[in-house]
Amino acid sequence: MKASPIITLLTDFGTRDPYVAAMKGTILKICAEAKIVDISHEVPRFNIRHAAFLLLQTTQYFPEWTIHVVVVDPGVGTSRRRLIIETKKNFFIGPDNGVLIPVAEREGISKIVEIKSTEYMLSEVSKTFEGRDVFAPVAAHLASGTPLESFGNIIKNVVKHPFPNPSVSQAGISGEVIHIDGFGNLITNMSNEHLRAKNIRFGEVIAVSIHDRTYKIPFLRTYGDSGKGGYLAMIGSSGFLEIAIDQGNAAHDLGVEVSAKIFVTK
Amino acid sequence: MKASPIITLLTDFGTRDPYVAAMKGTILKICAEAKIVDISHEVPRFNIRHAAFLLLQTTQYFPEWTIHVVVVDPGVGTSRRRLIIETKKNFFIGPDNGVLIPVAEREGISKIVEIKSTEYMLSEVSKTFEGRDVFAPVAAHLASGTPLESFGNIIKNVVKHPFPNPSVSQAGISGEVIHIDGFGNLITNMSNEHLRAKNIRFGEVIAVSIHDRTYKIPFLRTYGDSGKGGYLAMIGSSGFLEIAIDQGNAAHDLGVEVSAKIFVTK
Amino acid sequence: MKASPIITLLTDFGTRDPYVAAMKGTILKICAEAKIVDISHEVPRFNIRHAAFLLLQTTQYFPEWTIHVVVVDPGVGTSRRRLIIETKKNFFIGPDNGVLIPVAEREGISKIVEIKSTEYMLSEVSKTFEGRDVFAPVAAHLASGTPLESFGNIIKNVVKHPFPNPSVSQAGISGEVIHIDGFGNLITNMSNEHLRAKNIRFGEVIAVSIHDRTYKIPFLRTYGDSGKGGYLAMIGSSGFLEIAIDQGNAAHDLGVEVSAKIFVTK
Repeated sequence: MKASPIITLLTDFGTRDPYVAAMKGTILKICAEAKIVDISHEVPRFNIRHAAFLLLQTTQYFPEWTIHVVVVDPGVGTSRRRLIIETKKNFFIGPDNGVLIPVAEREGISKIVEIKSTEYMLSEVSKTFEGRDVFAPVAAHLASGTPLESFGNIIKNVVKHPFPNPSVSQAGISGEVIHIDGFGNLITNMSNEHLRAKNIRFGEVIAVSIHDRTYKIPFLRTYGDSGKGGYLAMIGSSGFLEIAIDQGNAAHDLGVEVSAKIFVTK
Repeated sequence: MKASPIITLLTDFGTRDPYVAAMKGTILKICAEAKIVDISHEVPRFNIRHAAFLLLQTTQYFPEWTIHVVVVDPGVGTSRRRLIIETKKNFFIGPDNGVLIPVAEREGISKIVEIKSTEYMLSEVSKTFEGRDVFAPVAAHLASGTPLESFGNIIKNVVKHPFPNPSVSQAGISGEVIHIDGFGNLITNMSNEHLRAKNIRFGEVIAVSIHDRTYKIPFLRTYGDSGKGGYLAMIGSSGFLEIAIDQGNAAHDLGVEVSAKIFVTK
Repeated sequence: MKASPIITLLTDFGTRDPYVAAMKGTILKICAEAKIVDISHEVPRFNIRHAAFLLLQTTQYFPEWTIHVVVVDPGVGTSRRRLIIETKKNFFIGPDNGVLIPVAEREGISKIVEIKSTEYMLSEVSKTFEGRDVFAPVAAHLASGTPLESFGNIIKNVVKHPFPNPSVSQAGISGEVIHIDGFGNLITNMSNEHLRAKNIRFGEVIAVSIHDRTYKIPFLRTYGDSGKGGYLAMIGSSGFLEIAIDQGNAAHDLGVEVSAKIFVTK
């Protein structure tokens, strides 16, 4: 499928250093029409799950056949492979460490290519900056119309990294906090389907156990229904159950971090 | 008036979360030619005045008929209305909480439309993310040429949120700090006209009282005139009286925060 | 030489304030086709060396004849001059404080023009915001095709600001830390040529003295060769010797800041 000229970037580089700008320059040098959009450069260092979560929440809003480039990788400079994944809707470029898999599986994987052809990399590939030397030029060549197969061979087996699945039992739903957003909202791995399996509906009060304490929290449709400072549970824009404080910071008040266990019952 | 393809974004979302990127994707999906420019995403959470101040300092530098989108809103998800304001020069899109009013009044308001037509929103509108589901697609449709009246009915009465006005008395000028910039400069609500009303001119020393202390500060044309580390008062690029320390941080040294009362006399 | 429509921005303004957006608006008002790319706005305030270092690490990746604008300047508002430098490859616009010189000398300086013509500045030039009132409009006019000589006269003598040079002696190499990146890696002023002069090769262990302590560190090709948590020395993507901890923060662990002296021997 023909790629769009939109290339998104998602890294853990921050914007204080020259790394992101070097990637953008590299892209524009190869493909002057590229339209570069930042997803985020504030992913916590080497946090594959966090990056995978951001992808899950953004790619569906972009035009189809956008090229999404991810550079979040504890294994940079090792023999870890580099991938282009074509799904039913988009292209994804990044390391073979599982970061691309949740979003690619949601969209449906068509082909996975291992990037091998040095022709589409910078002439001097440093061992430590694949973002600039490999992923950026490959994205730009793909945007310029280079066919997918030119970059390397099709492969089948790649590193998986699915998020943990919550378990629904007689007693309730066991899950965990998979993300804390900038408002301090706790995003869990529970969807509305898990709640419906326990017969929990909007307007009811649910019992949420975190860190050996249990909170009675209303399950509402939106923040404003609660009143300033009140706790509430809701299905957020991510599609997952979120625990929030209206105009407050739930993560701070509850002392909760990512990976905290959470148990929900009626 | 026909909108330009430039769409600016001003939010309190930060860039660590996927929210800004989801808005940009949504815009580009509807209007591929849109040129998106970030004003800032670092507005303090829910701080309407701060966002209004940033708009006041930027819109005049952009091409006319730019579409400025603001998503800073303590009332998100409530029944608060959503607006498009056409001024004599630009379009503004955002919540009906007063954030758009200072800049719109400065430019001269032509029309206010309440956004109602679901045709120009995302098909699934979440209660908590109007930036992505309503404001971004409306901005993109406006940039694509959809006429203003298609989005809803013209209304008259909206929430006002003017900045406080300083008062000039026999004794001096009473005002307050309305903004502290990244250099720690204190920006007040006093303009050069207020100072001229008290006959204060460049080169003179003024008495500035904050937190029960009074400082003798030279009223200068520019930072460099003072010498490193020296206090100075000046009319900054915002058009307001600023209290600054040359190459230093006045807010930190004086222990001053936004809304602090300030009294100026000769 | 004809400028490209790409204009990069490198400032110490941060993105919380309206300054960067005002510069972008100003550019787009004059040159609608300009493609603006942020290098960084997180340069530490007034840190000329840091900004010069970021330029050294990015300009070679951009298309030729890009216009690079730098606004990092302790002397803003004083009589300090404003420059356009044309090199063999690019244009640079910024204050005459040395910040442009390392990169311009690397590329080879063709012409230096002192910006004088008020015709290409905003009509009201504030003393404190040259980025918006002078540098941004000059960059936009240059991108629009205004010839270099229209902006002012060619000059010869400008402020120099070379980085310190390491010295190689019988005992070893004396240098300093010139930059600490966002991963906490220490970037020194030593290149691979300095190491080769002391006969140091990849795979060897070197002795690195910082703050009166000496560390035995392997000199490796890449991070992954060391193993998580291990110290290593390597030639980074900047071309300089870096001291790093694999997946760790060397600056924090060693308590080192920019300008720390460093001594390297076999």
